Amino acid sequence: MRNPPTRLLLGPGPSPCYPQALDALAQPPVGHMDPYFLRAMDDLSAGLRKLFGTNNELTFAASGTGSAGMEMVLTNLVSPGDRVLVFAHGVFGGRMAELAQRLGGKVKIVSQEWGRPFEQATIISEVEDFRPAVTCLVHAETSTGVLQDLSHIGETIQNAGGLFVLDCVTSLGGLELKLDQWQVDAAFSGSQKCLSCPPGLAPVTFSSRAMAKRRSRMQAISSWYLDVELLSNYWGGDRAYHHTAPVNMVMALLASVEAVLEEGLVECFSRHKRTYHYMREMMGQRKLQFFVENESHRLPMLNTIRVDSKIDEKAHRQRLLEEFGIEVGGGLGPLAGQVWRVGLMGNGARESSVDALFQAWDALRL
Amino acid sequence: MRNPPTRLLLGPGPSPCYPQALDALAQPPVGHMDPYFLRAMDDLSAGLRKLFGTNNELTFAASGTGSAGMEMVLTNLVSPGDRVLVFAHGVFGGRMAELAQRLGGKVKIVSQEWGRPFEQATIISEVEDFRPAVTCLVHAETSTGVLQDLSHIGETIQNAGGLFVLDCVTSLGGLELKLDQWQVDAAFSGSQKCLSCPPGLAPVTFSSRAMAKRRSRMQAISSWYLDVELLSNYWGGDRAYHHTAPVNMVMALLASVEAVLEEGLVECFSRHKRTYHYMREMMGQRKLQFFVENESHRLPMLNTIRVDSKIDEKAHRQRLLEEFGIEVGGGLGPLAGQVWRVGLMGNGARESSVDALFQAWDALRL
Repeated sequence: MRNPPTRLLLGPGPSPCYPQALDALAQPPVGHMDPYFLRAMDDLSAGLRKLFGTNNELTFAASGTGSAGMEMVLTNLVSPGDRVLVFAHGVFGGRMAELAQRLGGKVKIVSQEWGRPFEQATIISEVEDFRPAVTCLVHAETSTGVLQDLSHIGETIQNAGGLFVLDCVTSLGGLELKLDQWQVDAAFSGSQKCLSCPPGLAPVTFSSRAMAKRRSRMQAISSWYLDVELLSNYWGGDRAYHHTAPVNMVMALLASVEAVLEEGLVECFSRHKRTYHYMREMMGQRKLQFFVENESHRLPMLNTIRVDSKIDEKAHRQRLLEEFGIEVGGGLGPLAGQVWRVGLMGNGARESSVDALFQAWDALRL
Repeated sequence: MRNPPTRLLLGPGPSPCYPQALDALAQPPVGHMDPYFLRAMDDLSAGLRKLFGTNNELTFAASGTGSAGMEMVLTNLVSPGDRVLVFAHGVFGGRMAELAQRLGGKVKIVSQEWGRPFEQATIISEVEDFRPAVTCLVHAETSTGVLQDLSHIGETIQNAGGLFVLDCVTSLGGLELKLDQWQVDAAFSGSQKCLSCPPGLAPVTFSSRAMAKRRSRMQAISSWYLDVELLSNYWGGDRAYHHTAPVNMVMALLASVEAVLEEGLVECFSRHKRTYHYMREMMGQRKLQFFVENESHRLPMLNTIRVDSKIDEKAHRQRLLEEFGIEVGGGLGPLAGQVWRVGLMGNGARESSVDALFQAWDALRL
């Protein structure tokens, strides 16, 4: 067998896995229609509802990575000609805009300087003005490390007659989500961030309002694989075979979700916060600066550090990986060469991760 | 940790995994841009080329199950308005037709009685008549157990100016494939059949003719996740980040492919055949009949057995699962209640699998 190198994954995901997830992954699979597996699917849905803060019946794991979750949500909810309002302050808002355009949506992109969230008042006024069928927002922008407040915008979106779509890829399992209270209609995430399961599944949830819109569509959606109407009959309903579910990954994600729930959501979120505080302290000692200036705008699980633009940051990341086995992320798009992205997610949100990083940092004289 | 029940998977997939695949799956992941992982991706592409019988540069694993592979191929190659000719003699041909319709193709379905393949002369004459942009065929129909001959049709499809798409979900790794010789332009498979890896990945391959058509499309394709043009820059090219690859599953699939190559393709295919012969013998002793009457039309890895329509076959399958831990598949669509589908795939293609099945069969007095 190949012996993969040992890595401490402190990039933007995948994160260091919970051992329970890897153990579950290694079990010989059962069939995708096995009663044991169908019960596990129910347990996973129930667990994901707690993490998402929703009672949505249709809450499950899409058989693809986080981007497949994004695509499942938009493919089902954006009809050709729909007005789609996308708030973009990083790569992933931009990705939603591109996808909505591919789906035939009339897309308006509202941009914001990278490193800052949108004011909720701005969002409200844009929604009232554009009256979109679908409004897309990123809760935790993985490309910048910015947390977006969104507690007060759901009512406006709903009053304007549209659906509220939220990207929770990096926040699920690391920050409290209250999708029902926030009146979010559909959201997606990934298995490999704060859930510390390997990449390959996308938790998704659809409100009854979202499903009503999906079911009222006259035109078939372009995707069969991601058709949530078909999938709702496999994850619920009469358990009709759709596709062969990725059994081992589903069992692993269930183990991860159970690990989070066993720790307790309050403690898990608090651990992410404490680790961020420790990170900030270690950065302060080295006079390092966050890219996100305002502390209240920072994600605890994804820390964006400004790097000296005179150094070859790529070469240093490579040394960090090869000599110390530590992975951190570089900047995406306009932030390439400007920042490092340090993920302290899920099982990686530990002071020991921060210590390991800065021991290597100091040894490399960064 | 949960203790999943032990199952002998003799249904239409997932199949019993190679231990090497499960070992690889359970390793803590490395990052999706880690040089170690990028090399493993190359090795996987090289191995899949051998199994597909192709030199296609763009040969890789799509981040979804077999149906995602089907969707990746058709989404990229079927433009709205394209004439698409689908030969359907089971569920999976029908699925390709439905998907091509969703994509805006002008679809002509040529049907055939379930349980028989198409005559190649029929295919050739239909192609010459319809002159399709895309011709879709199923090599190994998992819903019926029928093997489709296709050695002589590629030239006609190409001469008519179209692309040849082949569903190899159940044949890859269990039957010799010669995609280049057969002039197939794009094909897809699944990880959980004869490759005996857990479900979750879809091996795919695209010829340079297929990619030329993809690249000449004026309109963006509706999917971002499955856009093979973007993916070609991650699996090759400049290794640009697209989505977070399912690292553990990719490593597991590589382990499976290496297990097949280590055994040797000739021996592996021959083992599938020998196991089928043993199955036929055991069935004969019990006066059981194959649904596929003509022996030369039968898939070695997927045996469809007629069941007595007076018995409650579903209850018997349930007992087989619960009392003996053996999974077999029921019939799909019009074959529901009429047949059992017994998969002898990959690591499950062993005489011991057949023995276990018929010991239970006899004990249940079926």
